[in-house]
Amino acid sequence: MLQIEEERELRLKRNEESLREISDLIRKCNIRIIGVQEGEEKENGAESLFKEIIAENFPNLGKEIHVEEAARSPKYVNVKRRTVGHIVVKLEKLNDKERILGAARQKKITYKGTCIRLSVDFSAETLQGRRDWNDIFKSLRDKNFQPRILYPAKISFRYDGEIKTFADRHKLRELVAMRCLAPQEILKKALIPEKEKGERGYKARSKELNR
Amino acid sequence: MLQIEEERELRLKRNEESLREISDLIRKCNIRIIGVQEGEEKENGAESLFKEIIAENFPNLGKEIHVEEAARSPKYVNVKRRTVGHIVVKLEKLNDKERILGAARQKKITYKGTCIRLSVDFSAETLQGRRDWNDIFKSLRDKNFQPRILYPAKISFRYDGEIKTFADRHKLRELVAMRCLAPQEILKKALIPEKEKGERGYKARSKELNR
Amino acid sequence: MLQIEEERELRLKRNEESLREISDLIRKCNIRIIGVQEGEEKENGAESLFKEIIAENFPNLGKEIHVEEAARSPKYVNVKRRTVGHIVVKLEKLNDKERILGAARQKKITYKGTCIRLSVDFSAETLQGRRDWNDIFKSLRDKNFQPRILYPAKISFRYDGEIKTFADRHKLRELVAMRCLAPQEILKKALIPEKEKGERGYKARSKELNR
Repeated sequence: MLQIEEERELRLKRNEESLREISDLIRKCNIRIIGVQEGEEKENGAESLFKEIIAENFPNLGKEIHVEEAARSPKYVNVKRRTVGHIVVKLEKLNDKERILGAARQKKITYKGTCIRLSVDFSAETLQGRRDWNDIFKSLRDKNFQPRILYPAKISFRYDGEIKTFADRHKLRELVAMRCLAPQEILKKALIPEKEKGERGYKARSKELNR
Repeated sequence: MLQIEEERELRLKRNEESLREISDLIRKCNIRIIGVQEGEEKENGAESLFKEIIAENFPNLGKEIHVEEAARSPKYVNVKRRTVGHIVVKLEKLNDKERILGAARQKKITYKGTCIRLSVDFSAETLQGRRDWNDIFKSLRDKNFQPRILYPAKISFRYDGEIKTFADRHKLRELVAMRCLAPQEILKKALIPEKEKGERGYKARSKELNR
Repeated sequence: MLQIEEERELRLKRNEESLREISDLIRKCNIRIIGVQEGEEKENGAESLFKEIIAENFPNLGKEIHVEEAARSPKYVNVKRRTVGHIVVKLEKLNDKERILGAARQKKITYKGTCIRLSVDFSAETLQGRRDWNDIFKSLRDKNFQPRILYPAKISFRYDGEIKTFADRHKLRELVAMRCLAPQEILKKALIPEKEKGERGYKARSKELNR
């Protein structure tokens, strides 16, 4: 009985992981445009808005780029939400996405002169997993440990001449607690209010998915 | 223990919902052609059959439309089934699908003079969820409550000057039972044989997925 | 309680099947190139390597084929693994994939004169399911029962003038045990060490998915 339970737990977890992978895979050719005022795309459509952004910021890239679809996400403005939705652009070629986002990392991006951001598009789960590292990421960066977030939601940083990689906070916390891994002052500060944070993260995720 | 059970139930449900969303997303650029005789596509392929339909019905739309793939679904004729399979056409651009289906709502569609239908393509789950509203939809329409089916499988209708939206029958039934919501005679008739209908729907779905 | 358990088991299984179907669907337009040395794609990219292969082997097919993306999979060389990764090419049109793989079945494929293979791309689950038939497939082929592997992971073979199809070993084993179905000497040999094989298959799959 216990074994069945364990196996079922494993299968459930595997399904969740596959789902996350597939959700990310489907978004692989997408670019998120963050910061464009609601309604700007009304007149000419989101696709031509994207093309304007490319023309304004990367005049050399624009001509050959094929857009599969582009739309505000979520589609309908929620008056209760105060945040502005992103525009999600699906390109035909993965290569185009990578060229654009690569170029976008080198400079400030604008639309009609206003600052905007271009970003990858992840599933809600992957996004939350990455966000869960935010505080630790900042602590490590401030102390110059050169942290990086790896796909899907791992953190890596330089420590003692090596690159350490962690997939979840618990593991990192354990090692910090056992003093196998300093920088304790930094990480502890970020890791101790674990319980509330973990729960908040979990609830936020559930809410998002159950909407 | 009970909490683990509840959480697991929640996770299972979340997986089912994600799966349905993904299944629908994959079908987003698809059009279903309903009513074309089995075998009609044998000679020139399903793609050129689709292009004939466009040329016959929407001579202005046809030229720029790119088809990713087109095939009879299911692929092989089941001699035991008496229904004819649909032809599923996957377009390259979401926009093209919407233009075609939008135009198809305005007129009768024919193939070589015979009436056919063009329709969106949903996952089996979403389709069943929408079908489950059929009886209530008809009752409401007959009484002029202007019902609509919303994505993925909600019903909305005008009642008492407001638009009411329901995601499942149980909720709607509760409100009808509590007399918070008339039109009781109409809805009751549709909602009372709930048990058998629910079960039939569920079994049909299981069978379809386990084939 | 028991009924809830059973229903949950059914739902879990249905999710697994849907996931496998979706994973395969996403890979539908893919071709795997097997046997190209690691690093060969470094200079000009995996896409142009694929185009070289097409030009070298199918000079008549090449011009119209559009590639959506192409990359070594897995992306990074694992020094611990001794096997060479495949190159996965995603085509824009399903039809192109079928034409190429159809032509590839008729002749030896080479890249710069070295033998390579072109193959369909399945999810890890489907691939494992198909591999699980390997031993039985070989036994049946050696005795001229004309076995075939059907999608996703079924075996069929000619027996006693009919075509028999099986989706899992247990069913096939039962029938062999009950002597309803010879060829017993052949199948028994393959089916008896069932327990160890089944478990090995299961563990291999788990490991692959949990990486």
